[in-house]
Amino acid sequence: MSKTFDEKLNEYARVLVEAGVALQSGGKLLINAPLDARPLVHEMVRVAYRRGALDVRVEWRDEELEKLRLTEGGREAALFMPEWAMEQAERMVDDGYARIGLRGDDPNLLAGVDGALIAERSKKTAQMGEKVSAAITGHTVDWSLGAVASSAWAKNVYPDLSEEDAVARLWEDIFTVSRINENDPVAAWKDHTDRLARLTHYLNDQQFSAVHFSNPEGTDLTVGLADGHVWDGGAMAGATGNSTVPNMPTDEVFTAPHRDRVDGVAVASKSLSVRGTLIQGIRMEFKDGKAVSVSAETGEETLKQLLDTDESAAHLGEIALVPASAPVAQTGTLFNMTLFDENAASHIAQGRCYSTNIAGGSDEEKLLAAGGNKSLIHVDWMIGSPTTDVDGITKDGSRVPLMRQGEWVVEAAN
Amino acid sequence: MSKTFDEKLNEYARVLVEAGVALQSGGKLLINAPLDARPLVHEMVRVAYRRGALDVRVEWRDEELEKLRLTEGGREAALFMPEWAMEQAERMVDDGYARIGLRGDDPNLLAGVDGALIAERSKKTAQMGEKVSAAITGHTVDWSLGAVASSAWAKNVYPDLSEEDAVARLWEDIFTVSRINENDPVAAWKDHTDRLARLTHYLNDQQFSAVHFSNPEGTDLTVGLADGHVWDGGAMAGATGNSTVPNMPTDEVFTAPHRDRVDGVAVASKSLSVRGTLIQGIRMEFKDGKAVSVSAETGEETLKQLLDTDESAAHLGEIALVPASAPVAQTGTLFNMTLFDENAASHIAQGRCYSTNIAGGSDEEKLLAAGGNKSLIHVDWMIGSPTTDVDGITKDGSRVPLMRQGEWVVEAAN
Repeated sequence: MSKTFDEKLNEYARVLVEAGVALQSGGKLLINAPLDARPLVHEMVRVAYRRGALDVRVEWRDEELEKLRLTEGGREAALFMPEWAMEQAERMVDDGYARIGLRGDDPNLLAGVDGALIAERSKKTAQMGEKVSAAITGHTVDWSLGAVASSAWAKNVYPDLSEEDAVARLWEDIFTVSRINENDPVAAWKDHTDRLARLTHYLNDQQFSAVHFSNPEGTDLTVGLADGHVWDGGAMAGATGNSTVPNMPTDEVFTAPHRDRVDGVAVASKSLSVRGTLIQGIRMEFKDGKAVSVSAETGEETLKQLLDTDESAAHLGEIALVPASAPVAQTGTLFNMTLFDENAASHIAQGRCYSTNIAGGSDEEKLLAAGGNKSLIHVDWMIGSPTTDVDGITKDGSRVPLMRQGEWVVEAAN
Repeated sequence: MSKTFDEKLNEYARVLVEAGVALQSGGKLLINAPLDARPLVHEMVRVAYRRGALDVRVEWRDEELEKLRLTEGGREAALFMPEWAMEQAERMVDDGYARIGLRGDDPNLLAGVDGALIAERSKKTAQMGEKVSAAITGHTVDWSLGAVASSAWAKNVYPDLSEEDAVARLWEDIFTVSRINENDPVAAWKDHTDRLARLTHYLNDQQFSAVHFSNPEGTDLTVGLADGHVWDGGAMAGATGNSTVPNMPTDEVFTAPHRDRVDGVAVASKSLSVRGTLIQGIRMEFKDGKAVSVSAETGEETLKQLLDTDESAAHLGEIALVPASAPVAQTGTLFNMTLFDENAASHIAQGRCYSTNIAGGSDEEKLLAAGGNKSLIHVDWMIGSPTTDVDGITKDGSRVPLMRQGEWVVEAAN
């Protein structure tokens, strides 16, 4: 018997709290969610307290308020951000709160708003939030990201459906890619992350010098890997030692590039939504790790502002391999949201690397020496497709096929 | 031509921001609102930024989360409250944020939840929030309270209507009692508060020794007034010197009783919703200022726990005079919410007095010497009705009629 909507929503809440952050009795949880997520959030809070949580807090996020600040406030208001606004977030990091973020923002929210002003505010936010960001990228707090079918996002993804139908359809997508239709979703997540673990073990054994992407759409990119790089993916040992799943869905294995050893051309296979702007048709040429030539069919200005955030934003901090047959890709839908779209295709990220992707990377000096990248931003964009081949390049220069026509061809993937 | 719903909502936003807290260019504003208030809050934020606000922040309140903590969490979770949770609120007080609170909670939210646990958590919340409470009662920050027709509140007030109709009807009530149907609501508020100012000036000139309430329903109560008491009502000079209106609606003039000079019997004329419980049929007998005999037809246990909060909770901190013809009374509706119901009837409050109701009251020693009351709680309950007479008693014992059959009979009221 197929599950009702409410049953699926409740299972999704359980997947996020149990498989996502593996909340334990006595644990503390912070949920950051858009206002549309109310029923899901209530169920997550219930699940958390029933598991014995000591404290569950919810930060409600209303993207409309951010827009009003930028469009109706003066310049001073647009850039206003008191120090104490971040202190509470830092205290919760110090106190070991696990974090679940629910995405669902309107991908086009800030279209038409002054891009320079958005960039300036984003940069300030990133600077003030550095301590919290570091805890997240370094996994010194447990965290997981999920999604909620907000009206704005649903209408963006399915513009031809009524709002009600668009929301219902998007929820079904979320349930599908989050394995909620499986008999026991929490167990299904275990099987799935075990397979990803076999892949990362294989890749870590190989210690390739570089990975090469190519496809007929124009991508011909060699990404050198950081010294002592670590492939990661699926589940991770969280701050409390339990197995956590930071991204739901996740079908990727990923590691840290060497910031100065990326060369060739990368062409986007999907569009990118960043800072409320849709960026389409990206083409970047890299030389010695840096994007030296950048263009986009739409949103080019926003993209260039992004790469100007700091001197490392034009370098890469992540490459990720995702098969073209992953559930997100099978939906055939472009979600205009990185959490989902990055699991439809192999991708690279501008900006900071995850310190856990480099052996000893929690020591910043070692991370930089190994070729890790440090930046205020981390923005993924998709280059993989069903036509993309990926090779591992060994230290002696020989090539090992990893993916053909977008699919894994190594034994560990079975 | 009558106004559309959206026009009324926008005028209400303007009334709260302009007449309520008189927000100035460069000012900062904190809005505390239930999730159902989204459209109104967006409009308030827009109005505030257009007036030149430097920062507008919204604390979204989800009463369901508080309930889940008490019903699904263990005892430790129910009482958990980290120190840092209040620090941000205190910083905003220090930084001069004006505060607008929107009420709309379900009056019966916590019915069935362990009353002792609720009382324990409420007391802890009150203790930790003392600094913020003091800024509010002392008007060292500008503040105003309004309301939003949340589904839960609307269904409580109009149980026989569909949810949609109940919400629509309750919004119309809110607009009516907030003078939004007047041609220029901000100007209407000015006229109304000018009249209340004439009444407070008259009463302050008289410096009555006590006020006596009587009605056929059993109330026969003499409330001695604090030495150097100050009648207040309607608009107040706010922290920035501008005229603010702390309660919307407001039809009361109010002052501080003497904590040890209240004698006789008070019988509730309306029910009281407190801590999520409905308390009906209150009867209290006072002797030398203290409630010595307390009963209620429903919710008696909650009421008694409330009076046990501290040793001053059984004493009075406010008396307020409201005519039976006030707009709230004219709606004929019992709102189960103090902000509204207290403007349908004269009332008294258990617990702390407002320091502004006693000359020099910001000095705690002077306040206590004058007979002011200091407590963790401040809870109004209604004793006035269309059958209630109110007299002022002068220092030489003579009586001056203030209200007859619930209506003002003094010249200043015209």
